[in-house]
Amino acid sequence: MSASTGPTVPVFAVENRGGQSDFLLVCEHASNRLPKAYGTLGLSAAARNAHIAWDPGALGLARGLAKRLDACLVHARVTRLVYDLNRPPHAPGAMPAKSEIYDIPGNATLTPAQRTARTEAVYLPFHAALHGEIARRIAIGRPPVIVTIHSFTPVYFGKPRDLEFGVIHDADPALALKVVEQAQRQTELATRLNEPYSAADQVTHTLRLQATPYGLDNVMLEIRNDLIGHPQAEDDMAHRLAPVLRSALSELQRGRHRSA
Amino acid sequence: MSASTGPTVPVFAVENRGGQSDFLLVCEHASNRLPKAYGTLGLSAAARNAHIAWDPGALGLARGLAKRLDACLVHARVTRLVYDLNRPPHAPGAMPAKSEIYDIPGNATLTPAQRTARTEAVYLPFHAALHGEIARRIAIGRPPVIVTIHSFTPVYFGKPRDLEFGVIHDADPALALKVVEQAQRQTELATRLNEPYSAADQVTHTLRLQATPYGLDNVMLEIRNDLIGHPQAEDDMAHRLAPVLRSALSELQRGRHRSA
Repeated sequence: MSASTGPTVPVFAVENRGGQSDFLLVCEHASNRLPKAYGTLGLSAAARNAHIAWDPGALGLARGLAKRLDACLVHARVTRLVYDLNRPPHAPGAMPAKSEIYDIPGNATLTPAQRTARTEAVYLPFHAALHGEIARRIAIGRPPVIVTIHSFTPVYFGKPRDLEFGVIHDADPALALKVVEQAQRQTELATRLNEPYSAADQVTHTLRLQATPYGLDNVMLEIRNDLIGHPQAEDDMAHRLAPVLRSALSELQRGRHRSA
Repeated sequence: MSASTGPTVPVFAVENRGGQSDFLLVCEHASNRLPKAYGTLGLSAAARNAHIAWDPGALGLARGLAKRLDACLVHARVTRLVYDLNRPPHAPGAMPAKSEIYDIPGNATLTPAQRTARTEAVYLPFHAALHGEIARRIAIGRPPVIVTIHSFTPVYFGKPRDLEFGVIHDADPALALKVVEQAQRQTELATRLNEPYSAADQVTHTLRLQATPYGLDNVMLEIRNDLIGHPQAEDDMAHRLAPVLRSALSELQRGRHRSA
């Protein structure tokens, strides 16, 4: 799974590939692992462990959902400070020189060759692997439902956020609307559509690249990371959200069946 | 370049990778080569050489354009009867059981495993290679302009077509409109927009998958194949169309510059 250039470490993993669910889960910011080839990027250990490096709790939540839904999960194994897999290669945030209040010295003056090498080492193999999982399912008449799983920081630029669960869509809002409806019905989570950001902020790259071209149902989930701050909390959240996803999808399909 | 399953022959080629043009040319139906592993698909030699197997003349035209524009060209090396690279894996036309007036017995009863194997052997490596060319250019701030090059048969279901040059767009019509305008100004070709088919006929898969998610300018060209029936005719057509593409792009960019 390693690429021909860049770090000789796997940049992604696929778990439960044979899962029987229609859901296909994706966690682009699962890891804060910084391969040795990139040094420290000029960051302190604290910064390299902060939310700028990854989405704390997202992988544990994704695994809890994969288990309960029997879903395949594709997740990153490299920090987004090297390459943010939910951004296209030209986006400033793909290899960010600044993230929230942190400067990232190792990304300040990347050459075109370095940008190319990171794109080849991280972005292309991850998205090729995800594309493979999607295309294989489509080929056998089991088009997957793409759910990307993220977490967001409770305090951003010094400002606390009261949102707990954000549900974001790309071009097609259908599944996102059902997830919001079911979360509000089934949980006490402060849930809102297209918060803390939306497609207009260029945060739906994975959905746009992988789901929208095939007309697949899709949604991006954002959970406030203080709610999934340790393994038990991650699993509890998966226990709350798995039925929300299941009901949202069956409501969506029921609606289509009625109108067909 | 071969895949781990399926035929151990290359399914694509990349020519002039270092080309300095912003244009990136794609020819999904360049070849009628049928790898031995697939037998004859139950077809006569005549059928295997007919337009159902490939777009005659398209590769020669694409190479002539690549040379004149100094553009990179990605083209297929396997017949579309095995996998039509301009179709998603669930489309009936991806591994067609019927094409125009021909039945394709070898595709009549494909198992899910066979559909998966063809997707892995042909579709995924081709589109991964194309994605790589695109992403590398985007990473260094040189977003490519995607032009797919096709040919169509002068007689379809017994009906002659008077169209000579069809120009098709996906979500963004900007470049296609300029190409039509320039072709009508610079050539005598009977040129029309979204003929002989359009995105509504699901013929813009490559553009939708590779160009639209990145917001790249893109267009699909269709040349009537009797106009490019031998190498000299292919090259003559490239000589006529290269300036059309160049002018269309510079008109498009000029328009943006003015409105910026």
